[in-house]
Amino acid sequence: MITSTENSRIRSVVGLRDKAKERAARGAWIAEGYRMVRDMPRELFSEVYVSESFLEKAEREAGEAAAFLAEISYEPVSDRVMKHMADTKTPQGILCVARCPSYTAEEILGKSDGMVLMLENIQDPGNLGTMVRSAEAAGAAGILMSKETVDITNPKTLRASMGALCRVPFCYAKDWNGCIRFVQETGRKVYAAYLQGSVPYDRVDYTGGCGILIGNEGGGLKEETAMLADERIRIPMHGQVESLNAAIAATVIMYEALRQREA
Amino acid sequence: MITSTENSRIRSVVGLRDKAKERAARGAWIAEGYRMVRDMPRELFSEVYVSESFLEKAEREAGEAAAFLAEISYEPVSDRVMKHMADTKTPQGILCVARCPSYTAEEILGKSDGMVLMLENIQDPGNLGTMVRSAEAAGAAGILMSKETVDITNPKTLRASMGALCRVPFCYAKDWNGCIRFVQETGRKVYAAYLQGSVPYDRVDYTGGCGILIGNEGGGLKEETAMLADERIRIPMHGQVESLNAAIAATVIMYEALRQREA
Repeated sequence: MITSTENSRIRSVVGLRDKAKERAARGAWIAEGYRMVRDMPRELFSEVYVSESFLEKAEREAGEAAAFLAEISYEPVSDRVMKHMADTKTPQGILCVARCPSYTAEEILGKSDGMVLMLENIQDPGNLGTMVRSAEAAGAAGILMSKETVDITNPKTLRASMGALCRVPFCYAKDWNGCIRFVQETGRKVYAAYLQGSVPYDRVDYTGGCGILIGNEGGGLKEETAMLADERIRIPMHGQVESLNAAIAATVIMYEALRQREA
Repeated sequence: MITSTENSRIRSVVGLRDKAKERAARGAWIAEGYRMVRDMPRELFSEVYVSESFLEKAEREAGEAAAFLAEISYEPVSDRVMKHMADTKTPQGILCVARCPSYTAEEILGKSDGMVLMLENIQDPGNLGTMVRSAEAAGAAGILMSKETVDITNPKTLRASMGALCRVPFCYAKDWNGCIRFVQETGRKVYAAYLQGSVPYDRVDYTGGCGILIGNEGGGLKEETAMLADERIRIPMHGQVESLNAAIAATVIMYEALRQREA
């Protein structure tokens, strides 16, 4: 059992938790909480840490968690060490370091009739995770992101995605404008969610392959980006609302696409 | 200028910020940030506090904020006092105490063809605020809530609503089951978002008056509540997603309703 927060393995987990550069360099990320760890594909696991309390509780209850722990190898840590390494204030007591999956834009765009979510400069890790969760639910083939978008391997993003991030392919584009053109070259229509857009979002055709472009939480899409799209669409809004939350706007559009695609 | 955090007015603001009971007893709440204060209906204002830095910046820029400050009466406070009374980590430097609007279920249900959002036991103040923002955008007539729902006058809720909470009528129901029946007695169909629902959310008719029932973030609607509804609807989900974020689910349904209602 590891009882010191100065232990080199614990320090390394904290580095992965806090530093995008560390995650990128090691191609690894951290999943926290029982359901997240349980749902992480086993082939991605590298280290699992379990707190004393979690172990005791699992043993006492002799339920699903105990059966899960019996199947894997893990390192017990003291509660204090778990609290030190966890990203949440009241950790559940289990976390794993896992290999971070990696995809190319070509893989994401492989099926020409797939729907892809395209995110420009999203800044809130929780918002990004919520979008990944919605994208999986709406049947999106994957997510393409501009390089200014917050690091998707952030523990908060994985948590907000409720594990969807282990299943939905994602990729950062070095050249965003080039990426948009590449999506169009695959035969997809690219629709930009744009407050000044002229077409209501439910009046365009999502039934073929398509790309849905969503901009930054505060400022929306750059004009330059919106102009590259095939259509600039808007979500009608009553009252004095200036915009919808970015994750909400993305989901409303993806679900209209799904409605059309499955009609 | 108030420079002490022990000042009785400042202590009273902190009480309003932190205590739902204080807000209820005084019928008051707090709006923080320039846009929130600016958009708050003036007739609701009771006290406005502005930090030294905010005042200096407004004077220097001589723009919209300066013009706004010239029109209202306010109390200058030191930056330290503002930081103490604000709910955000890096306060913008302006907040107001305002009368909290109050509505009855009868008022919310006044127009028989209106759409109402009905929330059971929502626990996250930010989630609730996002739903209010979406409800205004989707043209909802108001929001009815079970009494276990988190206090809607929480500063986090007002902030997440982007001010929509000043414009969308809301009301807590003492008797939730009775409230659902009351909505039905106004001639409305009540649709419950329910994971075990049998009807896809886009296959029911929202064109008349309707109520959309959304349950708690973790557990969804109580079965008992879902059974009171006219229909139990579900949002189809691909992949391994077990549910959507509650605010997202509410918005997807409200926007399908809006799409039908404006078709």
